[in-house]
Amino acid sequence: MDPQAKKTALRAITYGLYVLTARDGDELAAAGVNWLTQASFEPPLVVTAVKTDNDSHRLIEASGVFAVNVLGKDQLDIGKAFFRTSTVEGDTINGYRFEPGPETGCPLIVELPYWFECRVTDTVKRGDHTVFVAETVGAGVRDETVLPLVLRDTGMNYGG
Amino acid sequence: MDPQAKKTALRAITYGLYVLTARDGDELAAAGVNWLTQASFEPPLVVTAVKTDNDSHRLIEASGVFAVNVLGKDQLDIGKAFFRTSTVEGDTINGYRFEPGPETGCPLIVELPYWFECRVTDTVKRGDHTVFVAETVGAGVRDETVLPLVLRDTGMNYGG
Repeated sequence: MDPQAKKTALRAITYGLYVLTARDGDELAAAGVNWLTQASFEPPLVVTAVKTDNDSHRLIEASGVFAVNVLGKDQLDIGKAFFRTSTVEGDTINGYRFEPGPETGCPLIVELPYWFECRVTDTVKRGDHTVFVAETVGAGVRDETVLPLVLRDTGMNYGG
Repeated sequence: MDPQAKKTALRAITYGLYVLTARDGDELAAAGVNWLTQASFEPPLVVTAVKTDNDSHRLIEASGVFAVNVLGKDQLDIGKAFFRTSTVEGDTINGYRFEPGPETGCPLIVELPYWFECRVTDTVKRGDHTVFVAETVGAGVRDETVLPLVLRDTGMNYGG
């Protein structure tokens, strides 16, 4: 397999950008992620792949829950704030206000237009990211007029 | 959980559109899919969720391989041709010429700009689609000037 062809072909997969959040007891974490897809209507499953060495991964493994906050097309700056280690101060995480998700307690970033909460059902640990299969157990819409961000449109990519 | 909020929030996930192809011996099948993401850089894993009742699903279960063909932004019509049962005639599938993938023999649709071939490593059967985790073992680029199709831009969606 030609490494450059592999890189280019895998980068042709289309992604959004999301702030994944996690909670275990009093500890919270958040991370910008794009490797996410729905995986079943009934039950409503999603799959995300999370880097094994980050705090969100550790909390998801411990608690079995996470939340996904969808970035709108003009919210790349908010996404970028979650490409670094999480800092919680009061009711803000990485500078953005959150409230606890009703089903999981995971942070829901109040500026972001769509969110859903998930409970892990299956885990596949094979690569440098762990695949979490999870059932959607809560969801909300703060502003359905907002179009989600398309990662390719930002000039950034994560994949290949 | 409010069903309408769940639907709207899950539809805020951003997708491309792909022709997934499968082969078991002499039997071939193809299906339009959008539930696909990369899941690891090393090894280069992807995850796709495939409806349990279709022919591609049956062939992937039998052979453990599949290929992904990425639709370009002006190729929705080609994608739609794969929303029905597969018909193979000579070197065409659903009317589009293919060649066998070098690593798996799965059909590569020659009009589509990017492709990759995969071998299944893990399977999660929990919902109305099966989650296949698979290693990318082959890849090619036919036209790197083509921007991939974004499903939301077509007015179609599959999710929620």
